[in-house]
This record gives sequence, structure tokens and C-alpha cells, in this order.
Amino acid sequence: MLPSELIERKRDGHELTSEELGFLLSGYQAGEVADYQISAFLMAVYFQGLSTAELSALTGAMIDSGRRLDFAGGESPAVDKHSTGGVGDKVSLVLAPLLAEFGLRVPMMSGRGLGHTGGTLDKLESIPGFQTQIDLTEFEAILADIGCAMIGQTPEVAPLDGRLYALRDVTGTVQSIPLIASSIISKKVAEGIEALVLDVKYGSGAFKPSYEAALELAQALVTLAAAEGLKASALLTAMEQPLGVTVGNALEVRESIETLAGGGPADLREVTLALCAEAVVLSGVADETAARTRLEAILDSGAALERFAKLIERQSGDPSVVENPDRLPSAPVQVPWVASRDGFVGSIDARQVGLAAIELGAGRARIEDVVDPAVGFEIECGIGDPVETGQRLATIHAASKSAAEAAAERLQRAIALVPEAPPEAPPLVRCRIGPGG
Amino acid sequence: MLPSELIERKRDGHELTSEELGFLLSGYQAGEVADYQISAFLMAVYFQGLSTAELSALTGAMIDSGRRLDFAGGESPAVDKHSTGGVGDKVSLVLAPLLAEFGLRVPMMSGRGLGHTGGTLDKLESIPGFQTQIDLTEFEAILADIGCAMIGQTPEVAPLDGRLYALRDVTGTVQSIPLIASSIISKKVAEGIEALVLDVKYGSGAFKPSYEAALELAQALVTLAAAEGLKASALLTAMEQPLGVTVGNALEVRESIETLAGGGPADLREVTLALCAEAVVLSGVADETAARTRLEAILDSGAALERFAKLIERQSGDPSVVENPDRLPSAPVQVPWVASRDGFVGSIDARQVGLAAIELGAGRARIEDVVDPAVGFEIECGIGDPVETGQRLATIHAASKSAAEAAAERLQRAIALVPEAPPEAPPLVRCRIGPGG
Repeated sequence: MLPSELIERKRDGHELTSEELGFLLSGYQAGEVADYQISAFLMAVYFQGLSTAELSALTGAMIDSGRRLDFAGGESPAVDKHSTGGVGDKVSLVLAPLLAEFGLRVPMMSGRGLGHTGGTLDKLESIPGFQTQIDLTEFEAILADIGCAMIGQTPEVAPLDGRLYALRDVTGTVQSIPLIASSIISKKVAEGIEALVLDVKYGSGAFKPSYEAALELAQALVTLAAAEGLKASALLTAMEQPLGVTVGNALEVRESIETLAGGGPADLREVTLALCAEAVVLSGVADETAARTRLEAILDSGAALERFAKLIERQSGDPSVVENPDRLPSAPVQVPWVASRDGFVGSIDARQVGLAAIELGAGRARIEDVVDPAVGFEIECGIGDPVETGQRLATIHAASKSAAEAAAERLQRAIALVPEAPPEAPPLVRCRIGPGG
Repeated sequence: MLPSELIERKRDGHELTSEELGFLLSGYQAGEVADYQISAFLMAVYFQGLSTAELSALTGAMIDSGRRLDFAGGESPAVDKHSTGGVGDKVSLVLAPLLAEFGLRVPMMSGRGLGHTGGTLDKLESIPGFQTQIDLTEFEAILADIGCAMIGQTPEVAPLDGRLYALRDVTGTVQSIPLIASSIISKKVAEGIEALVLDVKYGSGAFKPSYEAALELAQALVTLAAAEGLKASALLTAMEQPLGVTVGNALEVRESIETLAGGGPADLREVTLALCAEAVVLSGVADETAARTRLEAILDSGAALERFAKLIERQSGDPSVVENPDRLPSAPVQVPWVASRDGFVGSIDARQVGLAAIELGAGRARIEDVVDPAVGFEIECGIGDPVETGQRLATIHAASKSAAEAAAERLQRAIALVPEAPPEAPPLVRCRIGPGG
């Protein structure tokens, strides 16, 4: 068996056996198949797709490449949420303590900012002292103590996925549905959870902007999870404009704290509650109505925020930020951005806002860049809002005046003011794909 | 500009500018763009093709990556021939001395065996002492002395093509028409010749078995050569069965000597004469009828064979093999292979014969394998020949009895004997594509 023959067969649309895929992938792990062969193979997969059997073989190889945790059979169900990524998406920070307070266990492994989207780890690390690089033994201990734990990907879990993802990122092979699905599901299966809620975003700030493409991805994810023995469902949620008001790490932590205290923007609260209720229903602990009622009560009582403070303390952060968010990093330059005409907010291009935040320093243009926790935006308007000339629509938080000016120009392109009210948007949660597909 | 963005644009079917292609390719040469990025790019090219402008930019980058020779404006036209490769294809060994004797100059750079096909260098090196690794100064000197010179690819000419070819070979991206065309034409333009004759094979032993695919390749080659300022034409010639009688290095040299002496098999003589006449016509030295008449006279006079002997001597080989071919290496085991039934030769799968020759040791299964110059086949029958049970159809030349037995089994699968005469094959030279396309 030659790697090039297998690449050619995939290229020509033939199905590879699990032995053949295993030969390629174990050869890659052993250094016998080169990265330039795997990248050509991945590009062939981009064009030809993977059969159900091939997808299962690939996912299995990624799971088996590292340690497989097992949280099943504990005193309460172990669940996790995965988002395909968005702008201002701080749902994880609210969801994990909220579900823990509800009584589920949430062993959460998250990633960093990618492309124009933010990352949960970068947000958490804006809390002074907060540690996300934690080993698996400690991860299990935190989960047992607090009911949730929030750490970064470790090389012990699905390391093959890590290598393949890094290769895809630099070879133009990220946007392939079977490759995306196997990457996400392999990690979540190896995480050892019992149920997974997927937040698949669509709209200008989503990884897959079209609703149809997001739907296809959601179905692929739920189907693959089921094939791998993991109960999963997906909600398709709007990412037409940033979620909530803030974009930027410390700003988003502050907004998460408000939401955990029962306040916060309505859209963030709604998406978080929908995903939490879905996790509860999927775990079989309560029906949706009961779940919603209790989840809302927990938020409004402040108990979820207390749980978050305990988590911060357990992961070496400063829990006083919960009472006093001014202890979070703040930017030296804060500039208002105002409406240049009367009318309505016609659209807010979330991808452009995300890219503008990266330019401010809230994310990485290159892997080696250091993130500035303080910078970002407060977008104080939403699509459809009436506006008047000179009205403040956003606040730019920047490290310098010149950075703020560049960001203001970006906002000018991202936020369109129009003379007439735009048509009403579809609901925030547009579609649910249950574990049956 | 990020390499991954350019890969994605090609993947999505967009045209890259020559600056963008130059960025990728010069980055590759400088070690700033990785081979795993180029292999993914090449796979995207396999699926999306290249526009005329992209093809020209790629070909230009390969030419400019090394030294560009210039044989134009000499006392006689400098020409070369390129074959897309076949089984038993020893045309170069006859063509170069024949055209030199005619009065053209033939600075020929050839390759080694590839896949199931043989290579001119391996054949020449079966002549005791013959050197093919010769530097460009000496190459020019040999050409001036003898009128032809036959050497291997040097890293000074189109080195980027060498790197890309090696990468394509192991990543399943060889069989792409624009990549094949740019590889061949860049080397020939850099060789500095004035006219190029392309021998594009079709049939079971060809790189592109279907006539239509070979025609497409031939047209792409002629068009690209013209765009790069090189006058070229192509003949589409049959590779349905091995060319001539012999397959294997020393065996093919022996057959070339017979053909240079005015004998040899009719099909080899015919294809060689057609390609030589095309080269003469393309050079503007004579019309086809005059060219054919004089070329045949040169073969029949023995003058071409004398020229070959001079070339052998000039390249450090033993010229006495021309008078005494028994001085060529010969195999210890020579076994007849006989007809198992009465009937006709229905087909001879040239690819299978080529692979069987490689198994005997006449070619390389891996790059590091050493070629056995003595082994191979004499196939003493052709498609359509009537045969009787027990009649000798081939002779196997092998290093051992067990190797001969394995080869006999392969021949059993390659040569089909049928009860009725098969339909007559199309002519050996089926189509000509002139320099106008």
C-alpha cells in the first residue's frame, strides 16, 4: 500500500476501507506518511467528501490517538456544549456555571480565538490569575468540587485532531463538513461526556454564513455524534449581528457576569437559556418547560454567579471580579462612535466587527500574537433600531488613539444605517435538530 | 498575502494573478511556503485546473528557477523529442543519432523509468561505461562534436520543476494536464532548443490510455509550447502493445542498434521515422517526403549507427557494442513462453508487461532500487498474429528461475489468446497536431 495510491483513490471518488484510512493516519502519527501527503489527501477529501464509513474510521482514529475520559455513570449527567463560533459569543461563560448550579456536571474543554471569532480561553484568561492550562487529573478534581471545569485542549485528548487541524488551518482545507464534523465530535467523544448540545451559528459572523450550509453542518454533527455513541442535538442560532453588546475579552466577561446575575442583554440570555434547556432535556433530567423555569430562577437568584465565582477561585483567578468588574483590565482609550445620519440600523456585519476587534488586539492575526484582554467594542445598537444623527451607537475600547480611529473606520463599513426599518429578523433560535437527526 | 488564502481561492475555482502564483512559488523556493501547502495547492489545481494565464505564470516560474540554455542561431537547427512514456519505447536511442546524421543538432535531456514505463537514461546506462550525468559545459561540447548529446536532467535546468515533480509523485497529483504540460514544456524551453516534437502515446501502456485524453494532453502541450515561444508539434502514436519486440534496458539497446543499422521491427522504425520527419519539417529544413527519403537512406546506409557509436565513445561508453551486441549485459536465465492454445493474439496489455519488467528488475519499484540492465522480455508476437499451441511467443530474460516463473504468470494475464482474429488496429501514427494547434 502506497500513500500516493490511496490519495489517488480518494481523489478519484473511490471509498477507502478503514484499513486503508488507518494505514494513512497511523503512518502519519508514526512519521511514515508525510504532512505533504496528508494535506493533499485532505484537499481531495474537501472535493470528494467522505462516506459514512470513512467518516467513522477517521473519527475513531482521532479518538483512539489519545486518552479517552469517561464521566458516564456519575451522580449526575455530564454534558458539554460546542459552538461553531461567532462574534461576541460568550455563552459558555454563562452556561457552564448555570448548568452546574442546575445539578449537571460540565467538564468543558474550549479553544482560543480563530479567524474573526473569539475564543472562550482568551475570555477566561482576561480574569486576573485565571488558569486554563490544567492537567486531566486536576480537571477531574475541579469538576468534582465545583460541578464544572473550563480548560484548554490538552495534547492527551485526540492529539491527531490537533495535528490535522493545524495542518488544515494552513492548507486551505478547514471548510469541509466531514473534516469539521470529525474534528469536533472526536474531541467531544474523547472528553467522555454523556450528552452534547451543539450551537451551530449562521449569519454574517458565522463560520458558515448561509442558513442552509449551517443546517447541513448541524445535521452532519448530530448524525456523526450518534454514530459514535454520543447523544447530541443542535440549535441553529442567529449570528447575523454580534451576540450581546460586547466584543472583546474582558468586556465579554463583564457582560457574562451581568447575565449570570440575572441581567445582561436579552439575546444573550435567550440563546444561553435555550442551549441550557436543551442540555437538560437531552440529559433526561427534566422537560423543557420545567428546565426553563428553573434555569431562569437560578439566574435571577444570583446562584449561578456565585458558582462562577467559585470556579474562578478554584482555577486560580480573582473571584472578586464578580462583585467588582472594574478589577478586570480596561483600555486606556474609550471613544464613542456615533450615528452619521437619521434612520435605522440596517445591518451589522458581525465578521467585520470580529476582524476589527482582532485589529484592536482582542485576537490573533498570527499564532504568536499576544491578546490584549482590555480592548474591543460595546455595540449599543441592534439591527432594526431607530437612530438619530449624533446618537452614540458604540464605544471603542482601544490601546491607543490611532487604533481607535482605525476601528472607527471599520465600524463605518460594518454598521449600515438605512432610511427605512429593515424586515424583522427570524427568531434567535431558528431550528432544533434532535438526537434522532 | 497568506498561502492558505491563495490555496482557498484556487480551491474555490478563482484565478490567481501572476503575482499571487509568484508569491507561492518563490516562497516555496525560499522555504517560506511549506511543501504541505504546495501539495494541497497542487491537489486544488488537479480539481480546478489552471487558466491560460496561470499556466503561463507557472511555466515561466519553472523556467526562471534555473539556467536557460540557448542553442538558437547555430549552424543547424537544434531540436528535441519528448515522449509521454511507454513500454519498449526506445525511440530516443534511434532518433538522436539519426537526426544528427541528417544534420540537425539534438541536445537531449532525458529521464529515468517512471511507473510502468522505461527511461532513456536506464537504457543508455546498460552500455558498459556510458555516462549520463554530465555537466552543461561538457553537454555543449559533446553536442558540438557529435551533433547530439544524451544526458540526464541536471538541477541547473528548471530545478523548481524537479521539486514539484517529486512532490506530485508522492501526493497523487501527477495526472493533471496543466501540471504535466508545464513540467514538460518548462524543461524543453529551458533546454534552449528551437523545435520540439512530442510523441504522445495512447493505449494500454500509455500514461493516458484513452485516445481522447491523449489528444487533450497533446493539444495542451503544443499550445503551451507556442505560448512560451517554442515551435512544437505532436504525433499521437499507438502504445496498445509494447513498441518493437524488446522490453528491458540492454535488450532495448540491442534492438535500437538493429534499427539504426536499417533493420529492427517495422513498428519501431515507422514511429521513429515519423517523429524524425516531423522534426525535420518543423525545423524548416526539408518537406516531409524529402525528409523521409533521406532518413530511410541514412538508416539503411549504417551511417546512423556509426554516429551512435561515436556518441557512445564520447560519453565514455564501449562503442564496440555496436559491432558486437553480445558485449551488452545478458541475463543468466532465458526461458521461452509458449502459446497455451491455438488462435490469435487478441491483446497485449503493455502496462502489465511494463510492470512485469519492473518486477524482473528492469525498473524501480522504489526510488532507491538498483536497475538490472540485463533482464526483460522479447515479445515475439503482435496483436492479430495467428498462433498455435506450443509456439514460442516470448522469451523471458531473468536473474533467477523463480523470477522467470513469476514473470511467466504475469505474461499469462497480459497476453490474451482468442479464437478469432481481432479487428485491425488504427495506424501507428493516428493523428498529428501541428504547431498551429
